[in-house]
Amino acid sequence: MKTWEALNDRLRELDALQGMRALLEWDRQVKMPPQGAGARASQAELISGLAHQRLTEPVVGEWLSALEASDGLEQFHRAAVRNVRRSYDRAVKLPESLVRATSRAEAAGFTAWVQAKQADDFVGFAGPLTEIVALKREAVALLRTDEAHPYDVLLDQFDPGATVAMLDPMFDRLASGIGELLDALDGRPHPAALSGTFDVAAQQALHNELVASLGYDLTAGRLDEAEHPFTITFGPGDTRITTHYYADDLIKGLGGTVHETGHALYEQGIPRDWRGTGVGSAAGMGLHESQSRFWENFIGRSLPFCRYLAPRIQEHLGLSVTPEQLYGAQNRVARSLIRIAADEATYNLHIIVRYRLECALLTDQLQVQDLEEAWADTYLDVVGVRPPSAADGVLQDVHWCSGAFGYFPSYTIGNLYAASLGAALEAERPQLWSEIEAGDFAPTLAWLRERIHTKGHLEDAPVLIHQAIGERDHVADLLDHLWGRQGALYGVSR
Amino acid sequence: MKTWEALNDRLRELDALQGMRALLEWDRQVKMPPQGAGARASQAELISGLAHQRLTEPVVGEWLSALEASDGLEQFHRAAVRNVRRSYDRAVKLPESLVRATSRAEAAGFTAWVQAKQADDFVGFAGPLTEIVALKREAVALLRTDEAHPYDVLLDQFDPGATVAMLDPMFDRLASGIGELLDALDGRPHPAALSGTFDVAAQQALHNELVASLGYDLTAGRLDEAEHPFTITFGPGDTRITTHYYADDLIKGLGGTVHETGHALYEQGIPRDWRGTGVGSAAGMGLHESQSRFWENFIGRSLPFCRYLAPRIQEHLGLSVTPEQLYGAQNRVARSLIRIAADEATYNLHIIVRYRLECALLTDQLQVQDLEEAWADTYLDVVGVRPPSAADGVLQDVHWCSGAFGYFPSYTIGNLYAASLGAALEAERPQLWSEIEAGDFAPTLAWLRERIHTKGHLEDAPVLIHQAIGERDHVADLLDHLWGRQGALYGVSR
Repeated sequence: MKTWEALNDRLRELDALQGMRALLEWDRQVKMPPQGAGARASQAELISGLAHQRLTEPVVGEWLSALEASDGLEQFHRAAVRNVRRSYDRAVKLPESLVRATSRAEAAGFTAWVQAKQADDFVGFAGPLTEIVALKREAVALLRTDEAHPYDVLLDQFDPGATVAMLDPMFDRLASGIGELLDALDGRPHPAALSGTFDVAAQQALHNELVASLGYDLTAGRLDEAEHPFTITFGPGDTRITTHYYADDLIKGLGGTVHETGHALYEQGIPRDWRGTGVGSAAGMGLHESQSRFWENFIGRSLPFCRYLAPRIQEHLGLSVTPEQLYGAQNRVARSLIRIAADEATYNLHIIVRYRLECALLTDQLQVQDLEEAWADTYLDVVGVRPPSAADGVLQDVHWCSGAFGYFPSYTIGNLYAASLGAALEAERPQLWSEIEAGDFAPTLAWLRERIHTKGHLEDAPVLIHQAIGERDHVADLLDHLWGRQGALYGVSR
Repeated sequence: MKTWEALNDRLRELDALQGMRALLEWDRQVKMPPQGAGARASQAELISGLAHQRLTEPVVGEWLSALEASDGLEQFHRAAVRNVRRSYDRAVKLPESLVRATSRAEAAGFTAWVQAKQADDFVGFAGPLTEIVALKREAVALLRTDEAHPYDVLLDQFDPGATVAMLDPMFDRLASGIGELLDALDGRPHPAALSGTFDVAAQQALHNELVASLGYDLTAGRLDEAEHPFTITFGPGDTRITTHYYADDLIKGLGGTVHETGHALYEQGIPRDWRGTGVGSAAGMGLHESQSRFWENFIGRSLPFCRYLAPRIQEHLGLSVTPEQLYGAQNRVARSLIRIAADEATYNLHIIVRYRLECALLTDQLQVQDLEEAWADTYLDVVGVRPPSAADGVLQDVHWCSGAFGYFPSYTIGNLYAASLGAALEAERPQLWSEIEAGDFAPTLAWLRERIHTKGHLEDAPVLIHQAIGERDHVADLLDHLWGRQGALYGVSR
């Protein structure tokens, strides 16, 4: 096992570098003063470069080959070698010059995106985005094997095991199924929204109580405010959440916090001493999103959870709201323009728009100069609305200027897995909803810990989810869930 | 200049590593959840190791030698080469085994110190401290040139240019001069202290206003709370302050904030594009402390500043306090046991105790087993009080268990320089105190910027301070200041 120990030392070092990279990013979004941006970019570039160098040293490839050739590796080490081999092969194929050029292009792209969004004008972002897309295409050409779809290369870095061949039919069925639901809902009266002004300090206290109640360990993390909510891990024992408080929207802030708590519970549930072994991380970003969506949607938007939450809101904000009002306000459905404000059902349509455009961009079927128009057309086709402006359309997301092509599908993969996890849990544990109503989240967390979190990255998500809940039709589970919740709330059925 | 560019690239990389190391430390003290400590220690060790490797590569020595041999270097590059040569020579002379042993001994020493301080028993710390002192002696033996005093080697890392031969007579004169002042004050009635309960949120608002008024650029920094106040720079454009708010002590918190603002104004005043050149940093820690002490003591504890501050306190805290009350409360003098709670005059005696003990420890004239007794005897001799316990005596400071032997003198060097800067400024600008009273700090900051901050590390502090204000007797300046302020307040004169 000397070879394994040598590899493991290197993996721990890479984990420490990754933790530092995470801290640079957390601080940038949460604390950094504006003029710190220049130095921060150099630091991030340096750390990324170092991590790349240390991962791609030929000796790492030799250790991997030796371990692959050795007999009798246990599952843990086989999984580690498989995961590290993937990262290594990907990294050695990308020259450092391309990695650094990409990092610079993304930094420039971010600045351009912020300005373009403010100006509501896509033109200023088109140049930097063209550069980013060109670099992505270059990376895809270097990484792609002959038989794979170019986009599979991008999916693979976020969701090992996911392919265009697998997603295309699932997403098509889902789009058409959600379309039927929306058609059925059209013209029905909406439940009332929850409007008002909500004291931010009181919201903070409520959110801090809530994350702890859900099982998030605040001695191994913290909750801060950022422009956009996110979850990030610096190392074993330090997984942080950020959220955003809105003085005029109680539900949006709460949804964000519960979502991020779901991510953080997954991170905190991965065996701590597996960190830095190649197995001690999530089994894919789709599975990660399934954990956030499970808590945000399946639990957080349920009527029993609203029964738990309404008295907590009353206590912290002095606001009288019935569980039924809260439930209605949380489950209004509408064809809309903005992904992050979308309801549980239409959210997936927003993702499918992006997935189709990304595939087209990466395969050269669409050019950046035509993207704004293509975006608007695809929205009209898939969601049923056409954006009147770039800011409410093609410029709404940060992902592309951060180079995260291939990430969007993870959100809907997450919704699909979450629906199946919810259906399986409900079938296994009839007492589920009475526990949720009582604020007793521990049994549900224990179930996720046992089935998902403690497995780390022993298996890729598709295998892991199959081991956890058996063979299930995820699209059917999600559509059943949406008809059962939003359909019922609006008084329609299939 | 190709050699210079190669060196400069390396220096920028080292600056980025240093900035990351600073962020790891800031976050550890300001934000990190308790369970994050383990991963954080690995990250800090990794970064320190990387920085050491990159500094000590033989090619760095070759670049330095080539530049030293080349004719016609301008002052800027000569200074850069001198500064980097010092760090390089120091780093290559210390074997990695010694560096690692020291790092381990300091980690063990810190734990032992915390426990010993809690138990109020020096015995538990004596063993680990003996180990740390032995390693320091070993390092001194490796670094020392024949003619230098062993302690000079330690001074040199914090205050290039300072020597025992220079400090001994200054510190002796200062101890005796402050002794005379204290004798004269003995038995005179103290001005009233400012007691009460002070709303922390209101203090925060006051402090944030104050740092901005003093000229601290909050777009290139921020003010947070930490257990112990400190100032830290992550790179050009990001110098942060921390302070501590006390609900029962308004003045202590304000003093800490003004002190750290002084440090931060220095950092923000160093030409930004000099960072990562070997010249873009402070010219020594004594000079750094002179900037904090100048603002904290010379300005912050003056009556005109109290005239500015009293209405601000009234506005933020609703507290009626006259400038004279504030001035009196800020300038109470007493022979006391604890350095960090000491007044402007006796503070220096606390430093002189430590300086003498460190010199004796490092030259083998004092052994750790006799340190507690030596500490008590020296306190009685120099300060005039004898600690009744180890916790209020030899165990009060964190410095020795963090291996910072040689740092203490910087505080009094800072007070000496600050007094001379104050005297020179007062002589040059008769309008000084009316500006301070009016809250117009910009001319004073501009004067410091021109004389000190914008010079970076072109010269070591003793030369730089001479260039700034000419030949001055720093001890006489400080004693004059103390007689003029505390002496006058207590109604005594020489």
